[in-house]
Amino acid sequence: MSLVPVDKLVVVGVGLIGGSFALALRGQQLVHQVVGIGRSRENLDAALQLGIVDAVADDFTAVEDAELVMLATPVAQMAAVFAELAPRLGEHTVVTDAGSTKQDVISAARRALGSRFSHFVPGHPIAGTEHSGARAAFATLFQKRKVVLTREAETDPKAVKRVADLWRACGADTRQMPAARHDAIFAAVSHLPHVLAFGLVEALANRPEADDYFAFAASGFRDFTRIAASDPEMWRDVCLANRVALRAELARYRQQMERIDALLAAHDAAGLERLFARASEARRAWQGVLE
Amino acid sequence: MSLVPVDKLVVVGVGLIGGSFALALRGQQLVHQVVGIGRSRENLDAALQLGIVDAVADDFTAVEDAELVMLATPVAQMAAVFAELAPRLGEHTVVTDAGSTKQDVISAARRALGSRFSHFVPGHPIAGTEHSGARAAFATLFQKRKVVLTREAETDPKAVKRVADLWRACGADTRQMPAARHDAIFAAVSHLPHVLAFGLVEALANRPEADDYFAFAASGFRDFTRIAASDPEMWRDVCLANRVALRAELARYRQQMERIDALLAAHDAAGLERLFARASEARRAWQGVLE
Repeated sequence: MSLVPVDKLVVVGVGLIGGSFALALRGQQLVHQVVGIGRSRENLDAALQLGIVDAVADDFTAVEDAELVMLATPVAQMAAVFAELAPRLGEHTVVTDAGSTKQDVISAARRALGSRFSHFVPGHPIAGTEHSGARAAFATLFQKRKVVLTREAETDPKAVKRVADLWRACGADTRQMPAARHDAIFAAVSHLPHVLAFGLVEALANRPEADDYFAFAASGFRDFTRIAASDPEMWRDVCLANRVALRAELARYRQQMERIDALLAAHDAAGLERLFARASEARRAWQGVLE
Repeated sequence: MSLVPVDKLVVVGVGLIGGSFALALRGQQLVHQVVGIGRSRENLDAALQLGIVDAVADDFTAVEDAELVMLATPVAQMAAVFAELAPRLGEHTVVTDAGSTKQDVISAARRALGSRFSHFVPGHPIAGTEHSGARAAFATLFQKRKVVLTREAETDPKAVKRVADLWRACGADTRQMPAARHDAIFAAVSHLPHVLAFGLVEALANRPEADDYFAFAASGFRDFTRIAASDPEMWRDVCLANRVALRAELARYRQQMERIDALLAAHDAAGLERLFARASEARRAWQGVLE
């Protein structure tokens, strides 16, 4: 595959995801110039120093001659960013994003971009760590990870192809699905687990005996709660943006907890073992697919 | 520290924990002979083949001249094992265990062992992986891990010292606390997280669209659910043995989920971010202590 490099890439939000996207394209020599835009001057300076971006811009005039704009801000900021972009997009500029929720981002884009909405390719790279900011970025973050693209009826197929080709050049495997399906799936396999982990750690930290309890937490707790160290603002936005699907998952999960509590109350050893065994088998089978 | 090696060690339940204890003592040349007892002939043969035990025994007569007996079976089996041990223990035989719950094991020991109860040292190595069986055992499992000893008023201090010295020789850091406190702490930092992870994976596996959902689960889900691959029988026993404390933790956790759901329903961005931020800070601070 010999792709034409991106002449000018503007990354809005040069954090773990936006920064890693720039580094991955640079690593493949698939971008000539990267300009960073963001709220934190300190983070942009770090991105400059680390060679993630070639320049930083104070406003959105930088997008006027950009071939590609990658939005990698927390999702609640995207509506404001689309409003800034709308009057400045060049005729061939393609806009894409890396937001963890898609229906809200798409509706913000549709409202702000008008006829240019067809050049917006909604995307979500299924990659990340519990770290954030430009310093956490690395070129191989997307290797063998999935990127979900959720095109709408109006989306320009050529824009989708360009974005998909670039993600594949970063080592990712691209998949397409409707935005609503994306949001339902990720409410279950990502947003809910984050809420469960945040909730567990916060409740523990609030207890007077917290230090003693944390002192005896071991490797199971460590892995279970790794995602509770994630960026609070990003996850606040994701949870609110996808709150309908997330609350449905939470309700389901609370029912599951009631079911387990009833098994414990009834001292139902066989029922409890069956439930644990189904989980253990499913988890091992999934791990087997991963390896 | 120059310890006298154990002349004869009997391990009842030669799995991940019992097998690793034997291997760790062997590695330090602190045991002359290891005899394995267990339910599964296939697992005992593996233990023999792997050099974890020198011999396997079909019944408990093997404990008659043992210096130390390590019980590493699922906790629900320990009452039956104590009953077998009681008439056969030598005058100086020390018995210890590796059960994840302590009050139930202590009360089973007290009932079965009578006057020999003073030679029982209740213990819990805070170590493990999601794997089980003799093949999962390895000599360094306890390096830098904590082992909690929960002596009772009657427990012979010399027996406690002997068991603690051996655990330290395996690389562990020993701590003492009352059994009730142990069970309360581990309900919160171990048993509850296991139940939450088992519950999440089981509920997901039961959905008609399970395969699609698992296909998009990523590294956050992987770590969050690693413990859901744990041994169902062991965890059934732990959860039932400690069900009073565990149900109290589950009730607390369900309240926390209701609190988060209310924040989502009210679209309370500031409240949600505060909760996530407290979790993120506490989790980072704890990770900092670990490193």
